[in-house]
Amino acid sequence: MKGLLHSLLVASVVAIALPAQAQFAKPEDALKYRQSVMFLQSQHAGRINAQLKADKPNFQIILDNVAILDTVNKLFFDAFPANSDMLVNTRAKSEVWTNPSKFKQGAETLNTNVERLSAAARSNDLAATRAAFGEVGKTCKGCHDEFRRD
Amino acid sequence: MKGLLHSLLVASVVAIALPAQAQFAKPEDALKYRQSVMFLQSQHAGRINAQLKADKPNFQIILDNVAILDTVNKLFFDAFPANSDMLVNTRAKSEVWTNPSKFKQGAETLNTNVERLSAAARSNDLAATRAAFGEVGKTCKGCHDEFRRD
Repeated sequence: MKGLLHSLLVASVVAIALPAQAQFAKPEDALKYRQSVMFLQSQHAGRINAQLKADKPNFQIILDNVAILDTVNKLFFDAFPANSDMLVNTRAKSEVWTNPSKFKQGAETLNTNVERLSAAARSNDLAATRAAFGEVGKTCKGCHDEFRRD
Repeated sequence: MKGLLHSLLVASVVAIALPAQAQFAKPEDALKYRQSVMFLQSQHAGRINAQLKADKPNFQIILDNVAILDTVNKLFFDAFPANSDMLVNTRAKSEVWTNPSKFKQGAETLNTNVERLSAAARSNDLAATRAAFGEVGKTCKGCHDEFRRD
């Protein structure tokens, strides 16, 4: 009975894990995918930052980049399948896989803060947009501190 | 007079070229950016392809991936600033920069064919979706043949 329960448990864990793993032909693809997404995140955050530092920020450029950031953010957190935790080149800490609820919470906080940034930018309020962008940056840093090796 | 005209021409070309170049802090960033985008394109095209080969294709998964493809496609063609043509690691041929109108035409064809793919997938018509996906694949290949080194 215990053996059967264990088999069912293993089977259900595999079934839950499969969709995420099945997205990638091999673990290295997951790593390359999340590195690609993170590079786009950094580039588009940089473009927003450049506008916020400019003498006359262009809110349309900010909004365009926030929209891209919002799309790619949502790709990022699905790129950590269970079989991609022990790759040589990954900077992801094991906490990504041992504390998935906290990792998921980081994803949700990021999405919320990017929505707030979008709302602030739509209002053309520079001070509010700068403050909202600061919160997005803090969310990035908080997750890096917790889940990424130096 | 000829000197002045030349200066004005150079100034206007620089002014037109600046926005694209200014997006990237250095030419290598443009290369890394377009490689990142292209990896995402290949991954999401692969996910669509996997559904189209499945016994019971999931049209929602197809549509989700088409939407991502549509977003990242539109990032791709802005990542070839004039100062990124001579990088050692790029596979981009010089034709990207010497024949920009044809390159731009490739971008437009890709966008059109992805829109058609989206329409076919929304209609839940598997044969039409497969055909439309085939056209997207041909567009990728056509551009690679012309603008990418082996």
